[in-house]
Amino acid sequence: VPLTPQRIGIVGVGLIGASLAGALRRSGSYVVGFDSSTPAASTALEKGLVDETAGDLSGAVQNADVVILAVPVLAILGLLPVVDALARPDALILDTGSVKRPIVEAMQTLPGACRAVGGHPLAGSERSGSGAANSDLFRGRPFILTASVASSPAAKEGAREIVRRVGARPVTMDAERHDRVLARTSHLPQLLASSLAASLELGDVDAAGPGLRDMTRLAGSDVAIWNDILMLNRGHLVNEAHRFIARLQEMVTAVDQGEMGQVEEMMRNGASRAALVQEAVPV
Amino acid sequence: VPLTPQRIGIVGVGLIGASLAGALRRSGSYVVGFDSSTPAASTALEKGLVDETAGDLSGAVQNADVVILAVPVLAILGLLPVVDALARPDALILDTGSVKRPIVEAMQTLPGACRAVGGHPLAGSERSGSGAANSDLFRGRPFILTASVASSPAAKEGAREIVRRVGARPVTMDAERHDRVLARTSHLPQLLASSLAASLELGDVDAAGPGLRDMTRLAGSDVAIWNDILMLNRGHLVNEAHRFIARLQEMVTAVDQGEMGQVEEMMRNGASRAALVQEAVPV
Repeated sequence: VPLTPQRIGIVGVGLIGASLAGALRRSGSYVVGFDSSTPAASTALEKGLVDETAGDLSGAVQNADVVILAVPVLAILGLLPVVDALARPDALILDTGSVKRPIVEAMQTLPGACRAVGGHPLAGSERSGSGAANSDLFRGRPFILTASVASSPAAKEGAREIVRRVGARPVTMDAERHDRVLARTSHLPQLLASSLAASLELGDVDAAGPGLRDMTRLAGSDVAIWNDILMLNRGHLVNEAHRFIARLQEMVTAVDQGEMGQVEEMMRNGASRAALVQEAVPV
Repeated sequence: VPLTPQRIGIVGVGLIGASLAGALRRSGSYVVGFDSSTPAASTALEKGLVDETAGDLSGAVQNADVVILAVPVLAILGLLPVVDALARPDALILDTGSVKRPIVEAMQTLPGACRAVGGHPLAGSERSGSGAANSDLFRGRPFILTASVASSPAAKEGAREIVRRVGARPVTMDAERHDRVLARTSHLPQLLASSLAASLELGDVDAAGPGLRDMTRLAGSDVAIWNDILMLNRGHLVNEAHRFIARLQEMVTAVDQGEMGQVEEMMRNGASRAALVQEAVPV
């Protein structure tokens, strides 16, 4: 894996893929984008985020030093064997899926397992598509890297180099821990936002303030992408959701019984952890 | 109640009181602020949000055309009889508490019931205190007015005038409906944010993205203010929380059983309602 990849193929130029493309192109690479949606690819090209668009998958993959898979997680699982067969033997294969264990397990079984590394940039937005992409999306953000047992040191270093070149901060984590933590920090919040939004009655919008806006923003996320994530991480997600429901129920019972000392303690506990999150993720 | 009040007394110059003060001062009124915290009052004065600060409650109330109570809801309940006794007979008494039925019921029993109107500006922030105040906080936001059966037409018109002068949009609603709707749009979201934040483990902050930041922002709200709100509206809140938990549990069960069609339908339902909220509350 060359440390300064010249040619990068990006499969899927939605919000994540096109933003990575723009950041990598700016850092000096030649970026070829492919998307099964021709309008998405055209937008990425018009916005100057890719150097060229490929007419098919092999056009983006065959001559690339690095191939980045930025499609929904089920599509990544389907593409991995195909990309492994098409890519140069020394090419790095990196993905951006939000669930890592099934992907890393699939990577391990590839003939070219040594050059594949799992990745997950912690950026994004409830907006989707290349129209919402921007080259600064990953600046200062964590980009989790989950190597498999088969990943070579060169592939791991190549992945870190990509992360640095998009302005992100590499965080290494094993795939199992990634999925458990993300169930709590991302997948459960998504369910909460959707459930809260679905609970609203139509006239409620008259009484909507900034708090409700923030608490339902995620509910506008791309449903197709999220369906894959929720399904593939359902073990951890269901577990975290049950823990959350038990905690919420405990708080509701304390409110119901007027145990305000207990409610206050729970709120202070939440406030101290929320402060860490606000500090870690600048607006 | 004069339509262009000259002198306005504001009791409590925290985030809401000091922001109202600044907006009303800018619109031409003479604003006297009182706060049991001397530093809060000094900050409001230094920031030019009030014309003067009063040394005690009567200094803010006695000669005012309008008295605005901007303290936590339990404190409003305690102050109402005192303010009613101190204020001029023709003065408007308006409050800003987040729970309205107990306040409007207390207003009805005052000797000066005819000149008291309940109010609730739907603005605010997880930040608190006069240091976070700004005169534009209410611009374009709904300001709910909940008159009591005893409120005079002049008092109701006076309250609408105050709302317009701070740049907000008057929305009239009965107190019972206000409390039911706000349980859903504000008080339950507060519990969710606090419970979610309290569920986080310390290392989770490495995997925090913008979604988690938004979903836990409210958990940083002022605990003392929220304790009052949760307790005074616990009937509606507990009811809405149970409905929410049932809906979330249904979604979690669908995920667990791989019923992704059902999950997708629930997410689409949430997305369409979330879109209305995002539209109603600009960033």
